[in-house]
Amino acid sequence: MIFSNLYIIAMEKRKELIVSAIENGTVIDHIPADKVFQVVKILGLETVSTPVYVGINVESKKYGTKGFIKVADKYFDPEVLNKIALVAPTASIIEIKGYEVVRKQTVEIPERIEKIVKCFNPNCVTNKEHDIPTKFRVKKVDGKIRLVCHYCEKYTSEENFEFL
Amino acid sequence: MIFSNLYIIAMEKRKELIVSAIENGTVIDHIPADKVFQVVKILGLETVSTPVYVGINVESKKYGTKGFIKVADKYFDPEVLNKIALVAPTASIIEIKGYEVVRKQTVEIPERIEKIVKCFNPNCVTNKEHDIPTKFRVKKVDGKIRLVCHYCEKYTSEENFEFL
Repeated sequence: MIFSNLYIIAMEKRKELIVSAIENGTVIDHIPADKVFQVVKILGLETVSTPVYVGINVESKKYGTKGFIKVADKYFDPEVLNKIALVAPTASIIEIKGYEVVRKQTVEIPERIEKIVKCFNPNCVTNKEHDIPTKFRVKKVDGKIRLVCHYCEKYTSEENFEFL
Repeated sequence: MIFSNLYIIAMEKRKELIVSAIENGTVIDHIPADKVFQVVKILGLETVSTPVYVGINVESKKYGTKGFIKVADKYFDPEVLNKIALVAPTASIIEIKGYEVVRKQTVEIPERIEKIVKCFNPNCVTNKEHDIPTKFRVKKVDGKIRLVCHYCEKYTSEENFEFL
């Protein structure tokens, strides 16, 4: 019985690609598939030097399809992780040490955010002057997120988020 | 002997994440690690509906580290694939059918490109009018790529590529 299970595993390997699990690092799981590259941007993974694995439209028991990101040898500040909640409130954050899960948490919508999103108002000072970073208060209206600009006080709604 | 090999495989599975190999689709391999998300953009993978797996800073025998992209159930026109050569001339394109490699090819720098890159000249008509897409002739000068704008004739060099 043990032998036959092992045999099945070996046979299935032919049809699989093995991606090393991270020994240490962070997994961001249950990201809506169409938000994965926005999370990549929020975490600044375009320029990271450690291994990163990303999956999009992967089967998920809970959500149908999902996305995930695994970042080796990196842990993120809660402040950074909570920015993920802006685009992926369902995301779970899993910290790995020595191949074991040492912490699992959900993300929380932050009260304030800076730099991540463009202000929707083309006449806002943050769109006119390149050296003034955006700055918002986060409001939740009817279950949807609205960013209130610190400078022009105009709203930027979820459907208008443009990531910087 | 066979049994012990199988046993090792089974033990290693504990420390690995299995990502399904694609039954049908395209693998873009040997992408410079820092160019992977540019290739994602060139291929329009932000909005694709089939499974996509991306690896960055993955160990490579040939190049030290590399990136790869696997796109299930999709094949790309040579025209699209050659745009990859702009940022990742070392990339290899592998087409998979029924879990088998049916085609392997390198990318070729195209003679002309449209829409992918912004013109470096802020006064170019493509930067002033939003409905005029960029259009370039591709030149190779001292091993580096230069794009010559169809409209303003100004050069955009590799180090100034800004992807649209």
